[in-house]
Amino acid sequence: MTRQPYGDRLSASIAARGQLCVGIDPHPAILQAWGLSPDVNGLERFSRAVVEALGDRVAVLKPQSAFFEAYGSAGIAVLERVLADVSAAGAIALLDVKRGDIGSTMAAYAQAYLSDGSPLAADAITLSPYLGFGSLSAAIELAGKTGRGVYVLALTSNSEGRQIQHARTADHTMVAQTIIDSAAAVNGDSRGLGHVGVVAGATIGQTGADFTGLNGSILAPGLGAQGAVPEDLVQVFGSARALVLPSFSREVLSAGPAVGDLRAAAQRAVGGVEAALVLG
Amino acid sequence: MTRQPYGDRLSASIAARGQLCVGIDPHPAILQAWGLSPDVNGLERFSRAVVEALGDRVAVLKPQSAFFEAYGSAGIAVLERVLADVSAAGAIALLDVKRGDIGSTMAAYAQAYLSDGSPLAADAITLSPYLGFGSLSAAIELAGKTGRGVYVLALTSNSEGRQIQHARTADHTMVAQTIIDSAAAVNGDSRGLGHVGVVAGATIGQTGADFTGLNGSILAPGLGAQGAVPEDLVQVFGSARALVLPSFSREVLSAGPAVGDLRAAAQRAVGGVEAALVLG
Repeated sequence: MTRQPYGDRLSASIAARGQLCVGIDPHPAILQAWGLSPDVNGLERFSRAVVEALGDRVAVLKPQSAFFEAYGSAGIAVLERVLADVSAAGAIALLDVKRGDIGSTMAAYAQAYLSDGSPLAADAITLSPYLGFGSLSAAIELAGKTGRGVYVLALTSNSEGRQIQHARTADHTMVAQTIIDSAAAVNGDSRGLGHVGVVAGATIGQTGADFTGLNGSILAPGLGAQGAVPEDLVQVFGSARALVLPSFSREVLSAGPAVGDLRAAAQRAVGGVEAALVLG
Repeated sequence: MTRQPYGDRLSASIAARGQLCVGIDPHPAILQAWGLSPDVNGLERFSRAVVEALGDRVAVLKPQSAFFEAYGSAGIAVLERVLADVSAAGAIALLDVKRGDIGSTMAAYAQAYLSDGSPLAADAITLSPYLGFGSLSAAIELAGKTGRGVYVLALTSNSEGRQIQHARTADHTMVAQTIIDSAAAVNGDSRGLGHVGVVAGATIGQTGADFTGLNGSILAPGLGAQGAVPEDLVQVFGSARALVLPSFSREVLSAGPAVGDLRAAAQRAVGGVEAALVLG
């Protein structure tokens, strides 16, 4: 399959559909709220309902792998169908897996999630860099070759993250900044957005992190249920010459299960984001 | 199911079978070397052959999830059977998944891998702490309640890991040391080994990391194919009042597929480790 570069595909999808990522997070509480059973049947009905409601109108849908893994291989089979449905509906499928390893193991993760023909292939995945940004290269390279993208954890919205993300390297650079800089180095000066993004929570406040040179996209969870408001995007990322992809989960999902209510909630979310970005 | 605490079970298994973990790493090159097809059928034949040869005599078997994920839900179904076979054979099943997330997502990973009745439940799993040691608490707590264990990445054997693992927190502590200290704090002063271990590569050399107070086990990959020799265990972990669990993969697996050859390679590995530890 010939696929355009990820940055171009993401930019086009956002231009057509608005600046929004909606998480597909089938945790037990939301299954219960939707009147679904907390089993693989409920998992499938929830996930496919979200895709049916939003797949033809939201730029990016982000299934969270953990909630599918919780049901074992049967849950992973559902995830395969969800990924296929997202693509068929024309949205970008960003699979939140936070994988990270070294050598042939990292290559196997890349094969699983970023290679043509794999049943779990997504348009982009999240990666976790505790083993070093360089350890992720098998995934970063394969994504670049196949028109896919990666988002490397940099600065997350949870308070425990500071232990590592705010630590300083030998030359006194913040760890999170070295991740952003490493991503920027891969993206280089290409005309379009590069395929290596970072994850940075919208609630992080002013940390001194500099996203200016990223030339990639920033996945920004933490809006809505996690306490940030759209205006935080401007405060946190105001100086970034990068594309901010705000991610909403509970605030949209809890409006369901009615299709019209889900669509209205997504519309409100994208409207709030765009108003904030225009003001910024 | 009433299960003894993980530290007691690990200590008993090592006392009975020797101080060794063997990885189940079905990467494409080893499937080819064994004359197996690089597909889910080869994956299953390889993995079950390792368990049949070693499950009744090696203390810990460690399947690497990435190589199963590479085949999608069909690969995960094989992993479920492998985990069941390892337990049935009497070995400890340590699943190398390196998961790490926050909140309800981390709870879902805990549910998947550490809860009674889950098809992917193992005796222990590996965790990755980029989001902070505290973000892993759902898994650490569930493991403690169910007689299972976790191994949190601390100091890994790959050179790229220094970017983050050797960074310094605000009080000038090395990040990896804060992981070891956090694990130690959970384990406390219990009489037996606690259930929170760390991953520290056997090739890391002298880093100044202090494992003295861990009161848990140290999973030490990197022996054999990755360049360390058993004597490195003494140099790196000599001062640790902790149980070192050396992990071999290629050095044992490449002796296969004959059952007798696999068993002899495992026997050589455990002999080398024990000779080095006696000398230390």
